[in-house]
Amino acid sequence: MAAEIVNSGSELGTDVDPAIDPAFALHRGGKMAVRATVPVRDADDLSLAYTPGVAKVCSAIAEQPELVHDYTWKSQVVAVVTDGTAVLGLGDIGPEASLPVMEGKAILFKQFGGVDAVPIALACTDVDEIVETIVRMAPSFGGVNLEDISAPRCFEIERRLQERLDIPVFHDDQHGTAVVTLAALRNAARLRGVGLGELRAVISGAGAAGVAIARILVEAGIGDVTVCDRKGIVSPDRTDLTDVKRELAGFTNKAGLAGSLETAMEGADVFIGVSGGTVPEEAVARMADDAFVFAMANPTPEIHPDVARKYASVVATGRSDYPNQINNVLAFPGIFAGALQVRASRITEGMKLAAADALASVVADELSAERVIPSPFDERVAPAVTAAVAAAARAEGVARR
Amino acid sequence: MAAEIVNSGSELGTDVDPAIDPAFALHRGGKMAVRATVPVRDADDLSLAYTPGVAKVCSAIAEQPELVHDYTWKSQVVAVVTDGTAVLGLGDIGPEASLPVMEGKAILFKQFGGVDAVPIALACTDVDEIVETIVRMAPSFGGVNLEDISAPRCFEIERRLQERLDIPVFHDDQHGTAVVTLAALRNAARLRGVGLGELRAVISGAGAAGVAIARILVEAGIGDVTVCDRKGIVSPDRTDLTDVKRELAGFTNKAGLAGSLETAMEGADVFIGVSGGTVPEEAVARMADDAFVFAMANPTPEIHPDVARKYASVVATGRSDYPNQINNVLAFPGIFAGALQVRASRITEGMKLAAADALASVVADELSAERVIPSPFDERVAPAVTAAVAAAARAEGVARR
Repeated sequence: MAAEIVNSGSELGTDVDPAIDPAFALHRGGKMAVRATVPVRDADDLSLAYTPGVAKVCSAIAEQPELVHDYTWKSQVVAVVTDGTAVLGLGDIGPEASLPVMEGKAILFKQFGGVDAVPIALACTDVDEIVETIVRMAPSFGGVNLEDISAPRCFEIERRLQERLDIPVFHDDQHGTAVVTLAALRNAARLRGVGLGELRAVISGAGAAGVAIARILVEAGIGDVTVCDRKGIVSPDRTDLTDVKRELAGFTNKAGLAGSLETAMEGADVFIGVSGGTVPEEAVARMADDAFVFAMANPTPEIHPDVARKYASVVATGRSDYPNQINNVLAFPGIFAGALQVRASRITEGMKLAAADALASVVADELSAERVIPSPFDERVAPAVTAAVAAAARAEGVARR
Repeated sequence: MAAEIVNSGSELGTDVDPAIDPAFALHRGGKMAVRATVPVRDADDLSLAYTPGVAKVCSAIAEQPELVHDYTWKSQVVAVVTDGTAVLGLGDIGPEASLPVMEGKAILFKQFGGVDAVPIALACTDVDEIVETIVRMAPSFGGVNLEDISAPRCFEIERRLQERLDIPVFHDDQHGTAVVTLAALRNAARLRGVGLGELRAVISGAGAAGVAIARILVEAGIGDVTVCDRKGIVSPDRTDLTDVKRELAGFTNKAGLAGSLETAMEGADVFIGVSGGTVPEEAVARMADDAFVFAMANPTPEIHPDVARKYASVVATGRSDYPNQINNVLAFPGIFAGALQVRASRITEGMKLAAADALASVVADELSAERVIPSPFDERVAPAVTAAVAAAARAEGVARR
């Protein structure tokens, strides 16, 4: 009996039939390919692109290592690296099962930023092993985009790679989300006519995204930000904090709140959900007037947008079927395109802030409560982010051309 | 003074000016790119290729791991991996400087075999580190093509990877060269009307290519083969042999010869040069009548083809500007295409022999002393090799579909 249904959809544990589901149809054979950008039609072509002509180029790079950026694709290709431990909302599904997401990411890099990207799903989860593996692969790449690696390992992996490599290393689940969130918040504040310094924000979720959002909001000058994990407000008196959360407790929650998420939300101006939990309507009702609710959990927002709209002046989600989608694709293609364009050695805080400003500015005159962030398909987005990030890299002295 | 000429061609240690040399012009910006094979034009496309649609595909692979072959590009993409230690004739020039060769290889994979390939140049040369790194990256790839890794490390790296991975691992400098050499030798023997068992061959060079050629000739039933390194004939009485050469001494040189390359060549039917040295004309003159000379060193053959032709009935080189070019591109694209087509778990000796037979057969009626091997641009080559390798994989029980 079991043998008979091995290849039917019923074995997949989901209610999909690969034979007819459009997502499976689209994924068949993968979503990407490599192509030559030079002709290889005849012996003359071959003698330039391969032996003997290629030897001259190799020798030149051996003597002047920086020429690798001019004469190979290194400076335009990013490794999209995961260990498959925190894939979408699916969790630790392993490297092979994460590949469709990494390929998806790779084609978004190309489509939106013109950046070549290669999926690398690793068969190891140890921090040392991941760091060593990426360091050894690094000569081939112009940048490293870390993806779907679970917290808190993702923080240490990123930090150590940034120390050891002279190319940009960027954990998109942290910083991509943070950049787009800040952009949406800047526009929401602009719409309400307040400065960020006048706002108190609450973040539900202290994983990769929550930590990075808290950091960028503080850098951007938020009035106060309180972060909550499953056990409530992250505050210095708690004895169960990881190193990262302890650090977080040191620079957030100026109000000195303690207790539950609901306590933190009382009178707060901004709710930012990156937790996947649910928030009761009463807690939203007790936020400040004209609050902003960014309920970004996917596919189920922490607060349903129809409920949030009853109390909040601006509502954003992670979904494409509601207004104001907080989507990382608004940030990472342009951030890497800008960094690669000037051969930045790293992606600084200033470059991320510049990306958020540029992204917010794209909306400009079209700003409204339903449009605090542009559509992922707005063609002005990537060029604006790219230019801003490249300029910031130059201003911060990390550009190499 | 030095600062003034930093960016001029004179600093390159070669007589080329990057500004005007056609090889440099062609290499500017690299030779390859990635492309999406599915549309990403609007929100509907994005919801299939990326979230939320992609999650179903990930979940399916998590439950049925073999589905990764159907729904990602894994089964069509090969990692072209080097450590930059034995690049062309340039030697140990490091990973960055090797990238133009790896990119060239990648586009040949695509152009000739329809196989996607990604250059991975590693910043490590330790055998353990290289093996571990490739094992960790392996979930992302359908095969591993090792390239330009110096002997004897290349032998151990390949062996250990083959033990640990269930995807094809193929060191092209060994086996690609061996397959094409065997194909040319089969046709040369056919032309002269003799069997391989009637021939005694001498190989000059006991590196990656020499060792693999010796192995495949023995498997194919050569009468005898004697291998020479810089110190002369590899024979059991020598005390300076590496493990690999000692093994070689055990299954070659039935004649029990000792001494110099010239001694080995006396009366030999076949000379195969993969050494980069030069062979005196007198040694060629003392070979058997109607001998075959395959002087494959690049760019300078061990014996100039015009000299070789005075004594030999068939002359081959590694150069495109003489007849009978022994070029690996005749083998590796089809070998990997065939192995990937049937999802072979490895590339067996039988698959290599089948590749050589198929390659030899392409020449068929056009067989002549100037044409014992087809042109790299003969469009029949890759399909013939692909089909033969796939069939052999099935016959040998290593195919998984």
